[in-house]
Parts: sequence; C-alpha cells; structure tokens
Amino acid sequence: MTDARTFLAQGDVFDSLTEAECRSLLATRTFGRVGVTSGGLPVIFPVRYLYADNAITFRTGGGTKLRAAESGDVLAFEVDVYDTETSEGWSVLALGRATVLTTEHEEDDVPTLDATRAGERRNHYVRMHCELLTGRRLVQARSVHPDGSS
Amino acid sequence: MTDARTFLAQGDVFDSLTEAECRSLLATRTFGRVGVTSGGLPVIFPVRYLYADNAITFRTGGGTKLRAAESGDVLAFEVDVYDTETSEGWSVLALGRATVLTTEHEEDDVPTLDATRAGERRNHYVRMHCELLTGRRLVQARSVHPDGSS
Repeated sequence: MTDARTFLAQGDVFDSLTEAECRSLLATRTFGRVGVTSGGLPVIFPVRYLYADNAITFRTGGGTKLRAAESGDVLAFEVDVYDTETSEGWSVLALGRATVLTTEHEEDDVPTLDATRAGERRNHYVRMHCELLTGRRLVQARSVHPDGSS
Repeated sequence: MTDARTFLAQGDVFDSLTEAECRSLLATRTFGRVGVTSGGLPVIFPVRYLYADNAITFRTGGGTKLRAAESGDVLAFEVDVYDTETSEGWSVLALGRATVLTTEHEEDDVPTLDATRAGERRNHYVRMHCELLTGRRLVQARSVHPDGSS
C-alpha cells in the first residue's frame, strides 16, 4: 500500500489517515462523488452510496458512470466532511475498478440521485471495489517556516 | 454551450441549473473538489477556493494539482450541497484549463488545505477558468413509470 499511497500523495497529502480509518469513515456517510475520465476529461458526479465489504455501491442511470463501469475503467470515489467555521474535516479517496451488478442485486435499497426515466425499468447498480484507499485530515493550512515555527 | 451540456450530461443530468445559477452557487461556497487525470487515473482532491470573474482560484503545494495546471491539462471542479435528511441539494461541475499564477498574485488571501512545507516559501496559486459549466438540483430519485406517475 505504500506505493499506492505515494502515488496518490505525490507531495500533497499530510496528516494522512490509515486504511482502517478510511474504511470506518466511508461507512459513516451515504453521499459522495465519483470521478471518471470521460473523453479524456476528468468529470465528477455526486452519488448516493452504500459502503460494505470494502466496496462502494451506487445506482446510476445509463450515462457516463455506467459506461465507465461497463468498460472496466478505474473510477475514483471521494467523500469528505469539512467545516468552514472550524476549518477542520477529513477526506477519503478510493480508486478501483467497478462492475455492473446483475439483476439479482437490484432489490437492494441503495438510494440514488439519478431518476429512472419513463420507459426505463430500473437504474443500474454499480459496485466499485476499493483497491487503493487514502485519506487525510483536513485543516486550514498555515505556512511553516524552515525552523518549524508558524 | 448546448454541446458542452449535452456532452457532460450524457443521460444523467436532469433538473439542470442554468449557467447563471451555477455561477451564483459557485460564489456561495469556499470548499470544493478538483478532479484531475493523473497517470491515466481519475483523482479527486478537496480544496479551499475563491470564485470570481468566472474563475476558480485555489492554492496548492507542489503535487498533482500543480503539475496538471502547469501541463495545461483540463481540470474538473465540483461543488455540492446535499442534505441527507431532506434528500435535497445541488451540485455544480466546471471544466477548464488552469494556469499557475505568477508571484504578483500570491498575496491574495486564498485559504488552502495544503501546508507549506519547511523550506518552501509559499504555496502555488492555480486559477481555473470555468469553460464548461453545468449543474443540477439533487433530489432523491424515485422511479417514474412510463405513464409519468411515480
């Protein structure tokens, strides 16, 4: 995991969370964001999700997120909490390949932000296994002088 | 803008916001997320930001976000508000190229989550012009039958 963490961090991450902390925090929320590369461009979509067994499950209509999952693309998934009053919070970022679940899973009660359209019988369920998991505590950064004082 | 909107939507967006609404909403917040493609993978980073003149300005250390800006990559920027109690909110997504600002801008008081490291005199200021701007109201979706009833 050190390599993955180093790859993701690339100089930006500090006060990082352990994988166990990331998993615990993922389970405390139900609203996050999926990042995909669409036509070579990065795109971010908000989603309702459920976290269990180190996987994110969300429902989606027949758009970009579904195609990315069907294509076996790596998705990014991000959850954060940040209080602009106290300047404190956390964020967790997961990367992984997603699969489109078969109909046997479609009775799960996963909330969704994507309306099922007229004539479309149901939304699709996408499950993303969290292969790389990193997180950090968010604080309003202050400059630190070379001697360590701020 | 219709083409951009259609490209971004690709079937997922409904109850979309106008560009004017997106701009107004962007200005109401100071915490959002930058999406970049790093090593072919989508990555999402939380940032503090300021919105003015149809551009997002944020500070960053010397990592992935800075390299993406220096390379002239297209960045994604997302802001959302969602209340899981009422199942209501909104999200705005902007795409655009970013530039690294020169030192003359570095006295601006843009908050940041990235600590300046010892020996690093200051963080970098990145400005992303919002070239494509889309948004939607977020609601917990209900299935809609072909006859329009729910």
